[in-house]
Amino acid sequence: MNFITKLKRAQEKTGSLLCVGLDTDWRLVPEFLHEAENPVLEFNRRIIDATHDLACAYKMNLAFYENYGEAGVYALHRTFSRIPSHLVTIADAKRGDIGNTADKYAETYFDFFDFDAITVSPYMGADSVEPFLKYADKGTFILALTSNKGSADFQNLPVNGEPLYMHVVRNAVAWNTRGNCALVVGATKPDELARVRAAAPHLPILVPGVGTQGGSIPDVMRANGDGPVLINVSRAVIYASNGRDFAQRARAAAMKIRDEIEVARG
Amino acid sequence: MNFITKLKRAQEKTGSLLCVGLDTDWRLVPEFLHEAENPVLEFNRRIIDATHDLACAYKMNLAFYENYGEAGVYALHRTFSRIPSHLVTIADAKRGDIGNTADKYAETYFDFFDFDAITVSPYMGADSVEPFLKYADKGTFILALTSNKGSADFQNLPVNGEPLYMHVVRNAVAWNTRGNCALVVGATKPDELARVRAAAPHLPILVPGVGTQGGSIPDVMRANGDGPVLINVSRAVIYASNGRDFAQRARAAAMKIRDEIEVARG
Repeated sequence: MNFITKLKRAQEKTGSLLCVGLDTDWRLVPEFLHEAENPVLEFNRRIIDATHDLACAYKMNLAFYENYGEAGVYALHRTFSRIPSHLVTIADAKRGDIGNTADKYAETYFDFFDFDAITVSPYMGADSVEPFLKYADKGTFILALTSNKGSADFQNLPVNGEPLYMHVVRNAVAWNTRGNCALVVGATKPDELARVRAAAPHLPILVPGVGTQGGSIPDVMRANGDGPVLINVSRAVIYASNGRDFAQRARAAAMKIRDEIEVARG
Repeated sequence: MNFITKLKRAQEKTGSLLCVGLDTDWRLVPEFLHEAENPVLEFNRRIIDATHDLACAYKMNLAFYENYGEAGVYALHRTFSRIPSHLVTIADAKRGDIGNTADKYAETYFDFFDFDAITVSPYMGADSVEPFLKYADKGTFILALTSNKGSADFQNLPVNGEPLYMHVVRNAVAWNTRGNCALVVGATKPDELARVRAAAPHLPILVPGVGTQGGSIPDVMRANGDGPVLINVSRAVIYASNGRDFAQRARAAAMKIRDEIEVARG
């Protein structure tokens, strides 16, 4: 099944556009889980068990697993097997390198881990993205406009009368020959999201920046219109509590966000 | 000791500007090493033992270690302890993410692994690079103009009369308040390298793209002038042979390149 179809079915089945970010910092795992063989894995399992009917996708930011060394590779592998197979999995990698190196990243996250999708950085151009795109059934999310303050430094620079991120968007549309290109646009920039959506009406957009980073769900949903979209929330869900009730509280936070998205969808 | 001083001393002590890229693909390790507990580690050890008097630095592209799973994390850690401490170590990571995530990458590669330097992607702007720069004694190499064909897609786009990569260079110069900023410029673009060097006379430049990618050492050295520079060669050194003589042949290849650099330096 290709990525777009899997995403559509996952969203229909769960009735949710929420993507939960399992950006699990080993230092922030509640103390009562420290006795587990792999506390990060145990934490993730409980978050997944508590939220899998409320989310269409899980995104794992690799920085947090790399930070956990060999145990992080293990936690990543095993977290995977806990996620119901009808849900979408995204490796938040933001990789970008020359062809023979990008091949390795693609193989690692698409073949060995079997993620459904990955995030990549566009700075090195088409041949740095193609090794991911050639996996026709997998989704490749290209960073267009990110949610952080520094996004203005380069992404907003004027290029032939348009900001740089719009050139990235137009390239992504052109690269979409296999129907597996997607975009990342931060929730903190709703006007720009609307502009991206107009230029790429059919590309899935992953929207981080709701929650801790301050993006507004109604603004995002209005700007996005009817296109395929995933709203990512990481910290505001997984760290809703750091006590014994963390999974329950994560569930409550996820439900609130899912409902807020549904209301905004109308 | 800060990064610039360490680099200068390593280059003086070895009389070499060569950086050997340990981009070790586990599938390409010679067959007679397959019995080793960790063939990638064993391969790296023999390459290091055969080349450490000919190179000022070793660069490890993380893609190849991630591709090797848990054994890759182990190989990375242990390869480290084999590199003489007066030589420079570079994590070729090309990471770039929002602040709290970039913090994790910086901690992983600067604290846990203790690399002397890292490569980062500029696309997400100043606050995605600052978590690396705040390690004042470590070097942060910012991708400016890369050696691949796709570099033209965005890096060469015109922004206020200059290509985008020159804006990256000017930002890097401005971010260099702690004296630890550096740049990556591909060997395949000597005219552009000269332009970068003119705008950033004192920043170390890591130059990949010599060897398999076809960059010319005399052209690079002429374009660079007197600024601090490292010439990276990966495949042309480590895969000089795939037989029992691979380490000897790697040494011969490294010596030839080192000498070619010295001749070009005049």
